Amino acid sequence: MAESKLSHIVVLGAGFGGLTFCEHFRHPSARVTLVDRTNHHLFQPLLYQVASAGLSAPEVAQPIRSILSDRPDVTVLMAQVTGCDLAKRQVFLDHEILSYDYLVLALGGCTSYFGHPEWKQFAPGLKTLDDALRIRSRVLLAFERAETASDPSEQEKLMTMVIVGGGPTGVELAGAFAELARTVLKRDFRRIDPGRARIILIEASPSVLSYLPADLSQSAARQLARLGVHVRTSTRVKAIRENEVELESGEIIRAATILWAAGVSASPLTAKLGVELDRAGRVKVNPDLSVPGHPEVFAIGDMALVPGKDGQPVPGVSPAAMQMAKHAARIINKELASGAGPASRPPFHYWDRGTMATIGRSAAVAWIGKLKFSGLPAWLAWLLVHLIFLIGFRNKLAVLLQWAYSYFAYKRGARIITSVPQARP
Amino acid sequence: MAESKLSHIVVLGAGFGGLTFCEHFRHPSARVTLVDRTNHHLFQPLLYQVASAGLSAPEVAQPIRSILSDRPDVTVLMAQVTGCDLAKRQVFLDHEILSYDYLVLALGGCTSYFGHPEWKQFAPGLKTLDDALRIRSRVLLAFERAETASDPSEQEKLMTMVIVGGGPTGVELAGAFAELARTVLKRDFRRIDPGRARIILIEASPSVLSYLPADLSQSAARQLARLGVHVRTSTRVKAIRENEVELESGEIIRAATILWAAGVSASPLTAKLGVELDRAGRVKVNPDLSVPGHPEVFAIGDMALVPGKDGQPVPGVSPAAMQMAKHAARIINKELASGAGPASRPPFHYWDRGTMATIGRSAAVAWIGKLKFSGLPAWLAWLLVHLIFLIGFRNKLAVLLQWAYSYFAYKRGARIITSVPQARP
Repeated sequence: MAESKLSHIVVLGAGFGGLTFCEHFRHPSARVTLVDRTNHHLFQPLLYQVASAGLSAPEVAQPIRSILSDRPDVTVLMAQVTGCDLAKRQVFLDHEILSYDYLVLALGGCTSYFGHPEWKQFAPGLKTLDDALRIRSRVLLAFERAETASDPSEQEKLMTMVIVGGGPTGVELAGAFAELARTVLKRDFRRIDPGRARIILIEASPSVLSYLPADLSQSAARQLARLGVHVRTSTRVKAIRENEVELESGEIIRAATILWAAGVSASPLTAKLGVELDRAGRVKVNPDLSVPGHPEVFAIGDMALVPGKDGQPVPGVSPAAMQMAKHAARIINKELASGAGPASRPPFHYWDRGTMATIGRSAAVAWIGKLKFSGLPAWLAWLLVHLIFLIGFRNKLAVLLQWAYSYFAYKRGARIITSVPQARP
Repeated sequence: MAESKLSHIVVLGAGFGGLTFCEHFRHPSARVTLVDRTNHHLFQPLLYQVASAGLSAPEVAQPIRSILSDRPDVTVLMAQVTGCDLAKRQVFLDHEILSYDYLVLALGGCTSYFGHPEWKQFAPGLKTLDDALRIRSRVLLAFERAETASDPSEQEKLMTMVIVGGGPTGVELAGAFAELARTVLKRDFRRIDPGRARIILIEASPSVLSYLPADLSQSAARQLARLGVHVRTSTRVKAIRENEVELESGEIIRAATILWAAGVSASPLTAKLGVELDRAGRVKVNPDLSVPGHPEVFAIGDMALVPGKDGQPVPGVSPAAMQMAKHAARIINKELASGAGPASRPPFHYWDRGTMATIGRSAAVAWIGKLKFSGLPAWLAWLLVHLIFLIGFRNKLAVLLQWAYSYFAYKRGARIITSVPQARP
């Protein structure tokens, strides 16, 4: 069949949503073009381990081309999406224009600073591999500088880290860095004691992981405290400057490392679509996940606002994105096979398979159906689930090896500072 | 014993020389300060594998602190050396001044452009982890751009790579990239055929690996040709511009990737010492490896010009640096123990244990004593030696796993582009 006779499905984004769509969509009269800004699919749930020197970058990322190399019907393009014209059914990339029959929007989200974009330079977020590598270098470098600093107040600043936001990412980062300082780095310095590092987790609401039942979120706070993290709930940030966080109380915390884990909004592309969005920039989709007025366009994952059973929106987690991707793939497959129209499409239903968050070595919380776990059992469940879902056999093995090594040897393999400011001549 | 009573040994550089010195020097009346610009010891013989996406950065690097964590007598400082005052016995770092009783200069070498520093921006060398990661991203990105390019001459440029210099690094890089294009990437693109990529290795002398016997260097050239590398010997470069190499013949080769593997000179610090240097900036040391006029200062590894048995200088390879380090450590240990003076020091003798270079999968050359190997036996010998010398158990295991996987699956694990130019807003 000539290429021009094939239906063209364009998928934007190769995260959990876009990739799952490609894996579940396959039709003899269709070809797929998958566009991503990077060349890799990122296993985002483990990104915090790259930031905290537990894993190397290639262990949580897989080349998109390699994942789809046995799919001649899928073309992968590494390109930047600059806009869409939904009326003309066109997508604009930096070097070309794609025309589509169906479009799947799966670009995910980005860090949101709640109207304070100027905080970004002082408090990076954690969304991409580059973010993670920058954070790793910044934290390790702060300890190196503390070792060579002579002024005690400078040393204290260098050994203080503030994490803003007590959701899963903030909790994971705080736990991982507390462990790094108190176990791995402890023996390695001669002039400073990394065990004295202060890790401060700031959360505006009265509890960390506030979407969990109260007993689990209290357990998480206790497990964090046991690792030495200073958990400060009901605390709001007023301003962030270089090496400085100002709280609403007026208190100022000096810290060489400030990380932002407080907010996520949808990809900025949604603002250019001319459709209705919520405050976080997500597209208010129809029950079948299509964009209102455009049955040939689907928005899935963190780009879509989908009401769940209890009226609350479906959460921005990878299982939700994957379920939405399968739903959209099923609909398009069926319409290409039968020629049926959008009228007969089934609505999307989210199946909540539970939620878990890890805090550190043998420390986690999990909530699956009516069961609540914390501590070691939750941590083992977390380990198992993340290993099963890690894409690629090689990565599974490498990650398992790294974890076993870190667990038993109290060492971390990926403590490498790259991209240090250039040497003086 | 009070710290001030201890003899202070300052070691500059944590490469093979500096690290081996610390491992072999230990005296109850001495303390050691080891200074390096980075936080890691780099296993440089495998750096080309990071550049060609075979290994990840943490697999060829180990935190210096972690290697020496059981040595309370060694303080590790991550700092830039800005100069030395040999008369006052002081070393200047960016944030402090160190006074020493003995000084070991082991800063290694850097890429030399033979009086054309302006070529550096167009043709990077391969000396550091950052170099390797930049080269990896640049090459992978060129293939990605070729896939989205529409102009055939642009595609040809994007799929051409020129490597200047047919020494071990140039040969390894050429072989590794030829294999990457012809096997790993081959199945993954839809619009271009990576098997058509041109890899051109340029060498000014009449043969590659010219320090080897003629039959071995001819074998290396044949093995390269079999991998599809265009080997051009007796070819000199006249100029390098952006995406363009001009040869002395006037021929111009357009290439998106140009790598420089042609020259190495000693660390620029040697120029500030006020002692006699050779053309490559190496210190002309005494037979005991001390710097003339300064028996308390040793220069080892790529910073030192040491005449070998046949009058040729000892080569700039890691076994030589390690042997020099042990020699200096033995001398200082003995003098601290006995109070003996420099007059009784033994001269350094280099023990050449052979040389080998790898070209690709099952392709290598080796010259050990009177034995010459090439092909699979040489490759297996190379594999064994490099695994044995890879510092750290974890890295050995991870690298073995990666190699086995790449060998049998024809895939590469580390094909991740980081530090791509930022997304458009």
